[in-house]
Amino acid sequence: MLTRTIRSKAVSSSATPRRLFSSSRIMAEQKYRLERDTFGELQVPADRYYGAQTQRSLQNFDIGGPTERLPPPLIQAFGVLKKAAAHVNTTYGLPKEIGDAISQAADEVISGKLIDHFPLVVFQTGSGTQSNMNVNEVISNRAIEILGGQLGSKNPVHPNDHVNMSQSSNDTFPTAMHIAAVTEINASLIPALQELHDAMKAKAEAFDHIIKIGRTHLQDATPLTLGQEFSGYVQQLANGIERVKAVLPRLSMLAQGGTAVGTGLNTKKGFDVKIAAEVTKLTGYEFQTAPNKFEALAAHDALVEAHGALNTVACSFMKIANDIRYLGSGPRCGLGELSLPENEPGSSIMPGKVNPTQCEALTMVAAQVMGNNTTVSVAGSNGQFELNVFKPVIIKNVLQSIRLLSDGARSFTKNCVVGIQANEKRINQLLNESLMLATILNSHLGYDNVAKCAKKAHKEGTTLKEATVALGFLTPEEFDEKVRPELMLHPDEV
Amino acid sequence: MLTRTIRSKAVSSSATPRRLFSSSRIMAEQKYRLERDTFGELQVPADRYYGAQTQRSLQNFDIGGPTERLPPPLIQAFGVLKKAAAHVNTTYGLPKEIGDAISQAADEVISGKLIDHFPLVVFQTGSGTQSNMNVNEVISNRAIEILGGQLGSKNPVHPNDHVNMSQSSNDTFPTAMHIAAVTEINASLIPALQELHDAMKAKAEAFDHIIKIGRTHLQDATPLTLGQEFSGYVQQLANGIERVKAVLPRLSMLAQGGTAVGTGLNTKKGFDVKIAAEVTKLTGYEFQTAPNKFEALAAHDALVEAHGALNTVACSFMKIANDIRYLGSGPRCGLGELSLPENEPGSSIMPGKVNPTQCEALTMVAAQVMGNNTTVSVAGSNGQFELNVFKPVIIKNVLQSIRLLSDGARSFTKNCVVGIQANEKRINQLLNESLMLATILNSHLGYDNVAKCAKKAHKEGTTLKEATVALGFLTPEEFDEKVRPELMLHPDEV
Amino acid sequence: MLTRTIRSKAVSSSATPRRLFSSSRIMAEQKYRLERDTFGELQVPADRYYGAQTQRSLQNFDIGGPTERLPPPLIQAFGVLKKAAAHVNTTYGLPKEIGDAISQAADEVISGKLIDHFPLVVFQTGSGTQSNMNVNEVISNRAIEILGGQLGSKNPVHPNDHVNMSQSSNDTFPTAMHIAAVTEINASLIPALQELHDAMKAKAEAFDHIIKIGRTHLQDATPLTLGQEFSGYVQQLANGIERVKAVLPRLSMLAQGGTAVGTGLNTKKGFDVKIAAEVTKLTGYEFQTAPNKFEALAAHDALVEAHGALNTVACSFMKIANDIRYLGSGPRCGLGELSLPENEPGSSIMPGKVNPTQCEALTMVAAQVMGNNTTVSVAGSNGQFELNVFKPVIIKNVLQSIRLLSDGARSFTKNCVVGIQANEKRINQLLNESLMLATILNSHLGYDNVAKCAKKAHKEGTTLKEATVALGFLTPEEFDEKVRPELMLHPDEV
Amino acid sequence: MLTRTIRSKAVSSSATPRRLFSSSRIMAEQKYRLERDTFGELQVPADRYYGAQTQRSLQNFDIGGPTERLPPPLIQAFGVLKKAAAHVNTTYGLPKEIGDAISQAADEVISGKLIDHFPLVVFQTGSGTQSNMNVNEVISNRAIEILGGQLGSKNPVHPNDHVNMSQSSNDTFPTAMHIAAVTEINASLIPALQELHDAMKAKAEAFDHIIKIGRTHLQDATPLTLGQEFSGYVQQLANGIERVKAVLPRLSMLAQGGTAVGTGLNTKKGFDVKIAAEVTKLTGYEFQTAPNKFEALAAHDALVEAHGALNTVACSFMKIANDIRYLGSGPRCGLGELSLPENEPGSSIMPGKVNPTQCEALTMVAAQVMGNNTTVSVAGSNGQFELNVFKPVIIKNVLQSIRLLSDGARSFTKNCVVGIQANEKRINQLLNESLMLATILNSHLGYDNVAKCAKKAHKEGTTLKEATVALGFLTPEEFDEKVRPELMLHPDEV
Repeated sequence: MLTRTIRSKAVSSSATPRRLFSSSRIMAEQKYRLERDTFGELQVPADRYYGAQTQRSLQNFDIGGPTERLPPPLIQAFGVLKKAAAHVNTTYGLPKEIGDAISQAADEVISGKLIDHFPLVVFQTGSGTQSNMNVNEVISNRAIEILGGQLGSKNPVHPNDHVNMSQSSNDTFPTAMHIAAVTEINASLIPALQELHDAMKAKAEAFDHIIKIGRTHLQDATPLTLGQEFSGYVQQLANGIERVKAVLPRLSMLAQGGTAVGTGLNTKKGFDVKIAAEVTKLTGYEFQTAPNKFEALAAHDALVEAHGALNTVACSFMKIANDIRYLGSGPRCGLGELSLPENEPGSSIMPGKVNPTQCEALTMVAAQVMGNNTTVSVAGSNGQFELNVFKPVIIKNVLQSIRLLSDGARSFTKNCVVGIQANEKRINQLLNESLMLATILNSHLGYDNVAKCAKKAHKEGTTLKEATVALGFLTPEEFDEKVRPELMLHPDEV
Repeated sequence: MLTRTIRSKAVSSSATPRRLFSSSRIMAEQKYRLERDTFGELQVPADRYYGAQTQRSLQNFDIGGPTERLPPPLIQAFGVLKKAAAHVNTTYGLPKEIGDAISQAADEVISGKLIDHFPLVVFQTGSGTQSNMNVNEVISNRAIEILGGQLGSKNPVHPNDHVNMSQSSNDTFPTAMHIAAVTEINASLIPALQELHDAMKAKAEAFDHIIKIGRTHLQDATPLTLGQEFSGYVQQLANGIERVKAVLPRLSMLAQGGTAVGTGLNTKKGFDVKIAAEVTKLTGYEFQTAPNKFEALAAHDALVEAHGALNTVACSFMKIANDIRYLGSGPRCGLGELSLPENEPGSSIMPGKVNPTQCEALTMVAAQVMGNNTTVSVAGSNGQFELNVFKPVIIKNVLQSIRLLSDGARSFTKNCVVGIQANEKRINQLLNESLMLATILNSHLGYDNVAKCAKKAHKEGTTLKEATVALGFLTPEEFDEKVRPELMLHPDEV
Repeated sequence: MLTRTIRSKAVSSSATPRRLFSSSRIMAEQKYRLERDTFGELQVPADRYYGAQTQRSLQNFDIGGPTERLPPPLIQAFGVLKKAAAHVNTTYGLPKEIGDAISQAADEVISGKLIDHFPLVVFQTGSGTQSNMNVNEVISNRAIEILGGQLGSKNPVHPNDHVNMSQSSNDTFPTAMHIAAVTEINASLIPALQELHDAMKAKAEAFDHIIKIGRTHLQDATPLTLGQEFSGYVQQLANGIERVKAVLPRLSMLAQGGTAVGTGLNTKKGFDVKIAAEVTKLTGYEFQTAPNKFEALAAHDALVEAHGALNTVACSFMKIANDIRYLGSGPRCGLGELSLPENEPGSSIMPGKVNPTQCEALTMVAAQVMGNNTTVSVAGSNGQFELNVFKPVIIKNVLQSIRLLSDGARSFTKNCVVGIQANEKRINQLLNESLMLATILNSHLGYDNVAKCAKKAHKEGTTLKEATVALGFLTPEEFDEKVRPELMLHPDEV
Repeated sequence: MLTRTIRSKAVSSSATPRRLFSSSRIMAEQKYRLERDTFGELQVPADRYYGAQTQRSLQNFDIGGPTERLPPPLIQAFGVLKKAAAHVNTTYGLPKEIGDAISQAADEVISGKLIDHFPLVVFQTGSGTQSNMNVNEVISNRAIEILGGQLGSKNPVHPNDHVNMSQSSNDTFPTAMHIAAVTEINASLIPALQELHDAMKAKAEAFDHIIKIGRTHLQDATPLTLGQEFSGYVQQLANGIERVKAVLPRLSMLAQGGTAVGTGLNTKKGFDVKIAAEVTKLTGYEFQTAPNKFEALAAHDALVEAHGALNTVACSFMKIANDIRYLGSGPRCGLGELSLPENEPGSSIMPGKVNPTQCEALTMVAAQVMGNNTTVSVAGSNGQFELNVFKPVIIKNVLQSIRLLSDGARSFTKNCVVGIQANEKRINQLLNESLMLATILNSHLGYDNVAKCAKKAHKEGTTLKEATVALGFLTPEEFDEKVRPELMLHPDEV
């Protein structure tokens, strides 16, 4: 029995992986310094810039481990915000030397090189207060270091009085959420969607001359060109870019200036507007101060709305990737109209077993984003009075969705779309086997006679041409002259 | 055992309710006429305008019963479309007499008076083909009747050749989906949101002078006015209207003209543009022909996107209604800051037990819409090749969400919001009991001394004033002069 | 402009359909009697048994219209509960004459014939109080009628004192929820799943001899029998039945006896146990009294859990119906391995265009149920203190899911599965074209030589046999002897 | 313009964080060795055990970065499986020396110490093929090392021929999914739920004597004890454990033995049963071989079902944590019935501002799990023919949910529940202010008189006692004797 227990523990995350990954283990190998907050003193790893509040949060929220840390783009957005605040605060009396040191430290946060100093997980306080303090502590300690002071001394740069000057966690965290989301959408998602759009468009143009059987209800239908089929995907992606852009007006509104409950207590008149202007300058994207700070703290509708657009893009991806993998199915026993690039061994023995792995990755991305949409909606709907306290889980899911859609689009473009080839021989063979071409004969032979031809061909497994000729309605030459799929690709001229 | 079985059957939907509600039962009481389609003849209720294809669908899809019928706004949108098509088709050769009769019959579909002739449920073919045929059959039979012909004769108005002229189920159904969604959003949802917005705004203004305790993390925080609190809801609703409007550009694109697979085979050049113009004229809302018909048939991203906006409105509703019912909780043992209108007996013995039933209805609406979002996303992501065959379930959920949000908003406005009253005495009492006002003394007494006052009051259960005076920091008069919540409602002047 | 507005209103649900269906319109055609509650008197349609509280709810909650009414199985479950309570209450002093009249009236509720007397919609008070009162009012008035009294007099049968004796809305509504769900699952869903299971099993057996190409990643893979492929569906359905049954232990717990907050105030010791026993007797399904009434009123985890099982069945349906429609795709340009029954005209000109409409209906059912799962989860997670006030929307969605899955399964079984035919010729042709059979030659020719054969065949578009013979590795006879798919259908004997 | 672009790139994940975290960067600092697969040679980091297929997947799927790696419990489960397979394969002819080396290497995978050798992300091929190969490569190279061979030589331990003997990715990956899920549920989730259950039960017992006001619809209702209130949470958790256990029968079924399509081709008769037995022995949890391997590869219903149970637990957590934070709201202006432990500074100035941060973390966990449920459902519903290719995203979400629920429960137990204290003074004060106690006087004074007392008290803001005495119905002594909340906590004795 004992052995069993030991064995079972050996494969449990409550045993090994927790030990492997948890922050406490990492700390066990560290040297420490003392930091203090209003609760008292705490040991903090000597090689970390963060202070007591971060350390306390690490200990109180051992939930999920390092993979659940707040994502880097949020930390970087905090860097942008703190740099902007330092700049604006110097116009309200913050000593320039301190402002410059904060600014320099914030640049290092923005660059990503301090990322290991931000260990806090999503599942902490729902206001993200400790993450705001994590940023304040790291920047103040790094600024102290720059100015030759002693880590943990809070002198000459105080995390609250200087780095967090005129701010509150309640307005900085939602501000950083919006900065991160807008930046990632603009710098990562839209370009990735555009790349995919362009690659699809190139394919649509390259395939414009290839006439193929259409399929509705999965059943053979009237023909279209492969280029027309791909043009549908192009339109989905063009619309996707439009719908993501359509949420930006509300996403670019910043909560900064609302402080604790939205009134702006303890901040200065005009601070909010100046911050939005400064963030715009630093990021290159347009931001405005939120017209109503109460809404900006208590609700995250703008992020729910934005995720609705991401969810729509995910649905487009699911449709496109599904089509492409079915069209590429085979090589012998599927539809086989497309050949997808072969990126890794499909099967050692089976040439042509090219698994549509990029489609699979992209559809898994879609499934993840569709679920994230539920998370963001549940979290967004649960604000209470002056504060929504699901902030970290909302931004984590939004940023994960943006990242996955962006990376997924890029991977799919590069490793699949650009290499797609049309199997024209197969496409043509299917087209000619189809009985749907009969519809074009209606005006020549009349509905009833055409039906006879098609039914005969279907029953006997012959081609439509064979049946039509056998029934004596047309000669082979007449059939070839009249039954031309290229006439079936557009509306009639009036 | 037998008795048990009988009893158990007595309460099963497979027994009574099925019998009660199913179409077959209704038919059992009817007289019939014969109608035919390519499968042969079928008995159709003599007092119904629909024909064989509708009847066949009724028999093949006994799923869910009458409550699962396609919603009236979709049927009405079909009426608009068929009227528009009749008009446009006369420019392409449809005899005017027939066009006029179709138009007149279509008007009756639009008016809703023929709604009982549309019995088909959502869970039918995924293209909605039989519903398109249901419309064609009803309009042709009614037009035949108008012109003095015989029901079921298909003469002088043929359901396919005339009513469905230049059309295919594959383009009419998505066109009707968009017409219905755009119309309902414009005519029902946006006005309802505006009403609620205006009622909230009136309250925000009426409550502008009432200073109250703020709450973050559900804990006492710095003060704000009740008007400021309500202004957050106003902003959510204003944004909600904006975000619903932001999806209209893509929702106003009509698939009409794509026919079977998107190529427009069997329709006429220019038909698509003329239809969009005619629908615009008939509805008063802007529509355009879709720039790419392949996308318009095979994907319903525009409806997924639109539902994302509806979902966001639902999340706003959840937040607002939750706040209001908590603020109205009591009368003695809750927060008690608001009094909600008493619309029905809460409890026979307990005066003041006013259940926040309108909030409850609205939050249930929100839960329903949040789930519909998943349905629409799953359905929207599953298009295949040239057709998405989840059309009926998509539009059912979109229209249900619009209806519930509209009705919910109107009911909430009328039966709750306009009657909300502030309990100023209670609000004031809570404000004055709060210790959070101490923050304003920081600049006068210094942080440490203020902390002493607040801690003493907290420990001894006294007011902040009592503690501050007892500690000798201020006289009662000084306290009243300095601790004024009205100074805590905005940023500092520079 | 005016014309435009008028036109736009003509197609809006806020206009016609609302007018068409709303209760106020129906009432406008009615005669009335006066009923009263503690709020005063109200006009009630003379031909309805319900009273003032029902009428008041109708007026206060004009949300969604008749399709959003609480579903019949819930009303019937209330009938069962009120009958059980009448019986148990006679053992606690309720006069037998009154108990019998209540019981008789309750039977009429159970039978479904009074369904038109239950007009209340889901989106009412979240406790369902008015629906409990609706039942009390209808049963008391009908019992009064039976006993020769006057409707609305509350004499000799009082809705509260007699029909609701020892009960509270807070315990009757959740009790009726569980009775309805357990009954529908047992009487409707499980038999429907069993039918589908059995029909699939029959097909699996009938197809047991048909060897076909397997497909993984949609790509050709090693062979299996069509019977084996269908056996996977059979297993999914067998598991589905098991997993639905697995939630019954918690779903069969009844809240009755908890009254207002779970303490059982104003009821009698033993009442709860007796009710569960009586409901068991009346329905033929096992019920127990809930071990903790506080949980039973404040949380609906058992229904969230149950819907998780329904959601899983929906996912199974999606997989099965997708497979079948892809296997039936064609007739010429798809996989074409199966022929599905032709239930309605697919296309007038195209023989063999059999749209997989039953698959489409079933996958739409799946999408709806998957969304309902989100609704039930959101609603179930939002209980507050002693009561969850999302009760109506929870049970509406659970019962809709059960009904749709049941009806969907039955329709799919009857109109699709039993008529599925295997296209053996096509299946055999694909199998023999496949190159995957090469794997069986590894032990004879060695991996490298086999790869040469397969690659040659793939490159040149020939069969594996042709390539193998051409390369001189085997004679045609040897090939036929060794390459036998029937040897590839099971593990090796040891 | 250039500056803008540079700035904007500075905060984009496409720039810095990608560079920071991506595998390619890590590799840039590495030495390499050559490994080869059927596609050719590839450079692999010299200090990693994995080979060419892993490396190729890393390069082809640059999606999401390290936080999206397959979770450790899955890798460990693969270790268990490969160890079991090595053991079983020795009974089918695998040389003992090789089997032992594999087993030893597998132990190191189980222990977690090789975790850095498993860099592949979720968003790869949907069968997880490369992750199976990652395991094969790492174990074979490590086993080669143990036996003194050369990394990358595939000699004497071949990744395919020996480590993967009688297996296919298509059966190993789902087997590892089930092993990981069952193990994590048993070793992590159930104990964590039990801990929380026990802590709640201790509180329920400790609070058994504290009578408090009940709240329904958030409004004051009849009293119950705080212990009774907590007993509802205890029941939710007890049921949660039951419902998680109820899914184990289907989750303990292992796909192993199905190989490529479910037929078991290339494996040995009995291999499947022996593997299940060996995995049972190694883990200490019961596993069986799946009765139908086709289902086990093509569908993941068991994981959808299991996540339904996790989702239900999440809903319970949301309810419980919401209640506790509302009951703890205040300190002055909320309900204030509970004091929650103060784990970190709430506010520097405000004593008693204890933010319910553990509740916030737990409700964010709930929101995440509720969304994961959608992801798993979408992914689970999309299997195709013989394989579901959403395997990695399914197991990632299932394991994340288990981990978050486990960690969340433990954190909540330790940092919140055990430290909850009842504010008896406040509870008692609210109870006595309540007017709901009036109900107990009905039998003494009659309904109408009691209503008069309650209405008077409500109107005048006095206590019920004052009103009752003022109206002359009772003396103060009589009131105190009759109105005793402790009589309102249970049903009446018969």
